[in-house]
Amino acid sequence: MIRPSVQALAPYVPGEQPKLKRLVKLNANENAYPPSPKVKEALRGFDASLLRRYPDPGCNHLRHLLARRHGCKGENVFVGNGSDEVLRLAVDVFTRNAAPVGVFDPSYSLYPVLAAIREAPLCKVPLPRDDAALAALRVPEPRPDLFCLVNPNAPTGTAFGVEAVRAFARALAPSVLLVDEAYAPFAGRDCVRLAFEERNVVVSRTFSKAWSLAGLRVGVLLGPAALVDALYKVKDSYNVDWLAQTVAEAALSDPDWMLANVRKIAATRDRFAAGLVRKGWDVTPSCTNFVWCKPPADGPSAAELQARVRNRGFLLRRFADSPELADHLRISIGTDAEMDELLELL
Amino acid sequence: MIRPSVQALAPYVPGEQPKLKRLVKLNANENAYPPSPKVKEALRGFDASLLRRYPDPGCNHLRHLLARRHGCKGENVFVGNGSDEVLRLAVDVFTRNAAPVGVFDPSYSLYPVLAAIREAPLCKVPLPRDDAALAALRVPEPRPDLFCLVNPNAPTGTAFGVEAVRAFARALAPSVLLVDEAYAPFAGRDCVRLAFEERNVVVSRTFSKAWSLAGLRVGVLLGPAALVDALYKVKDSYNVDWLAQTVAEAALSDPDWMLANVRKIAATRDRFAAGLVRKGWDVTPSCTNFVWCKPPADGPSAAELQARVRNRGFLLRRFADSPELADHLRISIGTDAEMDELLELL
Repeated sequence: MIRPSVQALAPYVPGEQPKLKRLVKLNANENAYPPSPKVKEALRGFDASLLRRYPDPGCNHLRHLLARRHGCKGENVFVGNGSDEVLRLAVDVFTRNAAPVGVFDPSYSLYPVLAAIREAPLCKVPLPRDDAALAALRVPEPRPDLFCLVNPNAPTGTAFGVEAVRAFARALAPSVLLVDEAYAPFAGRDCVRLAFEERNVVVSRTFSKAWSLAGLRVGVLLGPAALVDALYKVKDSYNVDWLAQTVAEAALSDPDWMLANVRKIAATRDRFAAGLVRKGWDVTPSCTNFVWCKPPADGPSAAELQARVRNRGFLLRRFADSPELADHLRISIGTDAEMDELLELL
Repeated sequence: MIRPSVQALAPYVPGEQPKLKRLVKLNANENAYPPSPKVKEALRGFDASLLRRYPDPGCNHLRHLLARRHGCKGENVFVGNGSDEVLRLAVDVFTRNAAPVGVFDPSYSLYPVLAAIREAPLCKVPLPRDDAALAALRVPEPRPDLFCLVNPNAPTGTAFGVEAVRAFARALAPSVLLVDEAYAPFAGRDCVRLAFEERNVVVSRTFSKAWSLAGLRVGVLLGPAALVDALYKVKDSYNVDWLAQTVAEAALSDPDWMLANVRKIAATRDRFAAGLVRKGWDVTPSCTNFVWCKPPADGPSAAELQARVRNRGFLLRRFADSPELADHLRISIGTDAEMDELLELL
């Protein structure tokens, strides 16, 4: 016997993860560069016999390091098995039964799936054009218990400023505003302070993008202790394995490596975007490690281009099921050589 | 705003995980021996640069290896982030809203917490005395959508035979019977075939106990494809990290190592249990890597003994909050030397 809403569920579709190593994966916003050499060292130095024991269920050392990094206390930090777990728990915990979950449209396509799993109605609000529009936004009725703001947004790559987000959070209170900052390190600015200054704001971060550790699954939520504590109550007992805790700690000890990669990727992105614009593409200015772009109307369609470059080994992401998005491509930023070759092909 | 049932929730309390390495942890049923040397090799040989990419979301290679081991197809295997995730998803997916979750009493103390998180009423049934009692058990009304049978059971360490479990599963149908077999390798027999022969049986296994990989978080569910598929629909997108998949595959390539440890632990357990019996303890015959035992009425209580041996560095588990269980100790089986020293202290 399977819960009816699960039977009817269309699950989240992640970017394709093919086995072929010669493919250039520009479809899942993975980092173009490997993680810090400290990660390799941590793996080499790890005492495998420790694995017979359960890991620290509270990730306390990693929490402590993250708290120091973000200028807060350990009680303001939740560590999860990737942002996947962090976002699911937020949707589960900050939403009363039958209360809506708010999202902007377009945004990260995982949120509607999380709401469906929770059997919560989805409240879609058109993505505001700019900071002023966000700050002035009227909260829809019935008021969502939780609103998920991806900032910088996916797939558009655009970001709102911190004071506009604060104004929206205050309009939303006492409902919770989740600011999903998976791509914030690429933007060079963030809303982390709101997680400590506002009572209803939580901010999620991840090791998957800027820290080059998508393969590891470590996500973070920052926020008021009362909200963080609620996540700890319902998480899986031992949610982050010992290797993941150890490797994340190692990466965190080398922030310069991460920042250098972020800078390289931003430079490549701007060069690549300029190249597309020269070819007549419509490119949304991005502050992330991907670009959201639409080919010229007089040439081959996004679908045709996606198929064409796939034959040459390049995977790009297209949201084929959405009429509003299907004419765009979301292209993750790879190395300079990869992006030069792709620009040639497009 | 926090979901009211979460605010009221008393979370699962895992066995204490202290940092002091000189402590002998006999409180969480961890394996006394390290994982296979293949695990160390796999960590040394792992290409850290791969971590920039997301792991295989379907754990397909590991699924394939597990399917071969258990004589089924990949579609009959779910891989999760520890049994923690597997059991949570089973409770979430196989239970309609407001339908009860059935458990035996006493049993694994996580299930009542999972039911509470799901806001499902708990239906507690006294643990049947033997196979005949299980096979003849009348399913309680209102009928649970899901019944969780821990077999071998924790904390008692006892196990039902496969045909008694089959009879109970048939009485329960079409509700789902989850057979939690975390400790089955220590028993030398299991109910895995029921997962492929009965339409309403799923069996969970883990790498945490017999495979000495509690620190890793890899759990498995075996069952009919339709039930397994439902779990895949709601799991976190990338639920098992790349290192965990790699290390579990390495462990699985060396089953003899696991079996040798299981045999050593069983021999130590029987010797230790016999020693307790000689001292007048009431010891439930165990087919796991722990013993469930009660000190003689004319000596110090379980609580006193727990505190006394803790001062000497031994951690034991006692369920102090349960009036029916608090006079017992659950003692995980360590090495021969550790158990000899403990027996002396008790």
